[in-house]
Amino acid sequence: MPWPKDIKENPAKFIINSDVTISLSPYNRGRVRNAAVNFLRRLSNRTGVFLNEGFPTTDKKGSIHITFSTIAKLGIKNDESYALNVNNTSITITAKTDVGAIRGLETLLQLTQNNESHYFFPGITINDAPRFVWRGLMIDVSRHFQPIHVLKRNLDAMASVKMNVFHWHLTDDQGFRFESKVYPKLHELASDGLYYTQEQVKDLVAYADNLGIRVIPEFDVPGHASAILTAYPELGSKDGYEYHIERFSGVFDPTLNPTKDITYEFLENLFKEITPLFPDTYFHIGGDENEGKHWDENIDIQKFKNQNSLQTNHDLQTYFNIKLEKILNKLGKKLMGWDEIMTPNMPTTAVIHSWRGENEGLPNGGSLIAAAKKGYQTVLSNGYYIDRMLPIEHHYTVDPIGNAQLTEAEQSRILGGEATMWSELVTPLTIDSRIWPRTAAIAERFWSPQNINNVDDMKKRLKKVSFHLEELGLTHIKNRDVILRSMTNNQDITALITLSKICEPLKIYARNKDGIEYKTYSSFMLFADACVVNATDASAFNHTVISFINDENNTNKVLFYLNNWAKNHDNYMKLEKNPKIQPLESLSKNLSEVSLLLSNAIQSKSISTENLNAVKNHIEILNNPLVDVEVVIIDTLKALTAYCETKYLSN
Amino acid sequence: MPWPKDIKENPAKFIINSDVTISLSPYNRGRVRNAAVNFLRRLSNRTGVFLNEGFPTTDKKGSIHITFSTIAKLGIKNDESYALNVNNTSITITAKTDVGAIRGLETLLQLTQNNESHYFFPGITINDAPRFVWRGLMIDVSRHFQPIHVLKRNLDAMASVKMNVFHWHLTDDQGFRFESKVYPKLHELASDGLYYTQEQVKDLVAYADNLGIRVIPEFDVPGHASAILTAYPELGSKDGYEYHIERFSGVFDPTLNPTKDITYEFLENLFKEITPLFPDTYFHIGGDENEGKHWDENIDIQKFKNQNSLQTNHDLQTYFNIKLEKILNKLGKKLMGWDEIMTPNMPTTAVIHSWRGENEGLPNGGSLIAAAKKGYQTVLSNGYYIDRMLPIEHHYTVDPIGNAQLTEAEQSRILGGEATMWSELVTPLTIDSRIWPRTAAIAERFWSPQNINNVDDMKKRLKKVSFHLEELGLTHIKNRDVILRSMTNNQDITALITLSKICEPLKIYARNKDGIEYKTYSSFMLFADACVVNATDASAFNHTVISFINDENNTNKVLFYLNNWAKNHDNYMKLEKNPKIQPLESLSKNLSEVSLLLSNAIQSKSISTENLNAVKNHIEILNNPLVDVEVVIIDTLKALTAYCETKYLSN
Repeated sequence: MPWPKDIKENPAKFIINSDVTISLSPYNRGRVRNAAVNFLRRLSNRTGVFLNEGFPTTDKKGSIHITFSTIAKLGIKNDESYALNVNNTSITITAKTDVGAIRGLETLLQLTQNNESHYFFPGITINDAPRFVWRGLMIDVSRHFQPIHVLKRNLDAMASVKMNVFHWHLTDDQGFRFESKVYPKLHELASDGLYYTQEQVKDLVAYADNLGIRVIPEFDVPGHASAILTAYPELGSKDGYEYHIERFSGVFDPTLNPTKDITYEFLENLFKEITPLFPDTYFHIGGDENEGKHWDENIDIQKFKNQNSLQTNHDLQTYFNIKLEKILNKLGKKLMGWDEIMTPNMPTTAVIHSWRGENEGLPNGGSLIAAAKKGYQTVLSNGYYIDRMLPIEHHYTVDPIGNAQLTEAEQSRILGGEATMWSELVTPLTIDSRIWPRTAAIAERFWSPQNINNVDDMKKRLKKVSFHLEELGLTHIKNRDVILRSMTNNQDITALITLSKICEPLKIYARNKDGIEYKTYSSFMLFADACVVNATDASAFNHTVISFINDENNTNKVLFYLNNWAKNHDNYMKLEKNPKIQPLESLSKNLSEVSLLLSNAIQSKSISTENLNAVKNHIEILNNPLVDVEVVIIDTLKALTAYCETKYLSN
Repeated sequence: MPWPKDIKENPAKFIINSDVTISLSPYNRGRVRNAAVNFLRRLSNRTGVFLNEGFPTTDKKGSIHITFSTIAKLGIKNDESYALNVNNTSITITAKTDVGAIRGLETLLQLTQNNESHYFFPGITINDAPRFVWRGLMIDVSRHFQPIHVLKRNLDAMASVKMNVFHWHLTDDQGFRFESKVYPKLHELASDGLYYTQEQVKDLVAYADNLGIRVIPEFDVPGHASAILTAYPELGSKDGYEYHIERFSGVFDPTLNPTKDITYEFLENLFKEITPLFPDTYFHIGGDENEGKHWDENIDIQKFKNQNSLQTNHDLQTYFNIKLEKILNKLGKKLMGWDEIMTPNMPTTAVIHSWRGENEGLPNGGSLIAAAKKGYQTVLSNGYYIDRMLPIEHHYTVDPIGNAQLTEAEQSRILGGEATMWSELVTPLTIDSRIWPRTAAIAERFWSPQNINNVDDMKKRLKKVSFHLEELGLTHIKNRDVILRSMTNNQDITALITLSKICEPLKIYARNKDGIEYKTYSSFMLFADACVVNATDASAFNHTVISFINDENNTNKVLFYLNNWAKNHDNYMKLEKNPKIQPLESLSKNLSEVSLLLSNAIQSKSISTENLNAVKNHIEILNNPLVDVEVVIIDTLKALTAYCETKYLSN
């Protein structure tokens, strides 16, 4: 995963033993060397085979031989194609660029198989290339700061599924995360001490580059500016306003004043400082969700609009954006912004980041197709908002182009897409479990041919990818138990694990209604934080019940789940209670009771009206969200109940 | 933990609710502010209470009020004492220095308790101060490089148990881990790209300082110099020798040439570059395990010895050390070295790090007392070698002074001790589980009064500390399952967890005989890496059996373990086999069989000679180490067998 463009299997078998070596041609340095060394480490860890040679060989051709022509400068024109061939005694990876070669190495590692006595790579010939040039993940480090090592492990994960753009959302109302030497108050007063030094930024950009990942910084203006204005209130649109770092979530009023020269002076100086650290051509200025309230309340800004024939606040923002684009052009950068920047007068040299959709009263798929038709390069995030906590099938089935009829030129302007990890509700402890494994499936959408879209097949492969991501260092699996141990004061967590496997965090921002339930410093070591999307037992139970209802041949599997839940409440009750686990009692109790009743009904092929009503009552109770999670087997329980009612009702 | 010097309980109860606030006097900045903010985060995570105020209040006195007199400059004279008082409505921490205040905050956090409905701090008055001024942990980052974030989380853990010295073993035969701008070949050619930039070093030192932890760098010379000589072979003692980064473990011959001026020029320039980054007065030059082989083989060095009346290689090394001490003194540093540097002519201004003991043919307790009597300041590590994988009781019962009769001056020269984490067999994945929780008990030895030495009581408290360390971000608990999932290709790991709870990694370096079984790049995601010292079920089973044999009243508990193991092999056999789990079969099978036989014997109060012999045979097989682990319930099984033989033998 992502599934390659073209695959031919053959019966060969390349055995992985301690003699495996890698050689690189023509250069044993840079990205490919880095990837080759990491490949050897990961292969050794996965297989337990102790390799004789821990580094690429230079004196002879390795049993894995990698050839490429050029060392790429990253950009949207970079060639990432590769060919991989595995036979009994040798493996070759051939690519135009070193980036293509490292994509091939990731594919090879995914091919690892084993039997009882050894690990091997199966014979295969693969020719592969990406469908889209822009396959991104955005991480918001403002709402919750994410330390460099957290970003690095996510970059590793991105590279392992061939993603190539890291969009770094560095500023927002809740914090300015970049060390500015020109305007030091930005990080001194507006970050709570949580920011990246310029050395760290350079280090991260180099780390990403080594993985073939471009880094696009985002400095969100003119809205989302509470942090900037906390440091430099003189740039604000409302005189005398008490600017402060926001502790809640939502859309706030503080906005830069687009009518003042000092605003542009500030941004030009700041961008001059920033841009040399980010070699990529694209530079994201945000531009979203400016509601213009403070502009409306400022007489001078109103005057300015009249003097400059700017009818609306959109016009004023376009005026601002065009000035910004000139500044960025001078610095050799291409301006990119969220789709609000696509106003009638905005030059088509800007890049439109399409994010709004049905949720914001726009058509599904957002502004992407419109932007491409108008002549803008464009990138899709609508449909890939992973912070909405929706099941993976929802994102996987969103295609950037879909059935749109586009000219070749229009199509080429659709660069690709980005999953967006907004961090209002995630901390370094939980961020991996919100990004992964779902983003791997999104990565496949961006890389693989459009017709690779079988959800069940994807889910099967995703399960394996998820586990390999843990092997790579991601924390999305292991941190569940950390949270549950913390919740229980280190008691036996079996009962809570069982519950967590059928619960998911509330979706589409319901967890943090109006943005004021959680502050940035609230606890995120709660039951909801231990739960993930696509809860494992829920999916399995749902499948099992469907097949039981249709064929009546899965009785034992259905009973396995029901009986396990039926006895779970006893385990839960054995826990010494505390304020963190006490609120789960109703969930635990009703689940056990409904499971026992349904289990008895299925086993006895009989259910009384009284018990049927009890079942329905338990399900109603379970259907109410609790401690910010929802039980995701409700529909299945209802289907099973309906089945019992039809078949077994005894009165 | 560590247990305070003086405790008085009272019946008050300070309820932890969202109104809790902290205030700091006289300064709301620096270490105490940092610790206070982290305290609020950790308290919120532990209790789930959403605090209204996420930062120390400045406008009013907080319900937790911290007062201190001075902001400390870290050093061995720094005062770390504090007084803590908890009553119903307010908590005060009073200290001479900010470091004392943050030690008090750690104590307070450890006091958190709860009932069903709320969390609280119990009423208490504590007056506390450390017994020793030097409470250290050494981490070797040469054998296996440990990224900055791994060190930082270990510094967090150290601070949480009031340790105050991080000894950073930065160079050895397997890698030079410091970026030198003066001698760049050191990190370019002798680190495999795994080194700390000077910015990272500064960042880490600042991070440690913020936690009240001093950082002592070690640059190990003249031996352990393979990496240095890989970069600068002209400094070596043997002409024409092919110096290279070592991939194995052990003691190697490459040694700096102490007779050449360029050696001292090199070291002076290097130390000039290094020392400004480490504000602490102490500077560790290693000096251990130089066997002088290359000195003996070099005619010029032999001549030099004769010319300078240096009888032995020890004399030559003393000559070298004295020159080094002068260089360091000029740079304002105090020379510290492993105890080999304590030769008759070595000035008493040097600091002796006592590490050798019985194992190296010296008396237990090593050279510590001798050094103190001779006038040296000294620090003990003999007895605290946590990489030897010995149970915690072994380390906890080693006291730096013990019963030695010392004058006050001699006693004051015994600064304290250091646990040493040599990293031949640990990676970032496993290092936490080798350091923690055992080092917390060693920290208690260094901080608490000498008479706090009840092993059982310590173990009970250690269990809680261990879990709190996970809450703090340490990975020693959660990474076990990561390894087991990797071993099984993500199958159900229950059977392997059961085995891991009675197995421990081979001790005292038996895992890596002669240092040539593992290379630095070998896999450390093996079964042995999932196992830890003081295996949980083993300890519990051992206790249970003792009480069963003595009182015959723990039958059910003993049977609980035996029956669990008896059925475990069935679970193991359900696993799809691969080369990583296949070798465990004999362990799994014999454990199940012996458990079944013993269980039957106990239940029926009867055992046949045949079964008794079978039991003994299984135990013999289990007694043989396997995949680098040993079963640590052997003695208990033997005791149980002997009991069955005496009581139940039926023919």
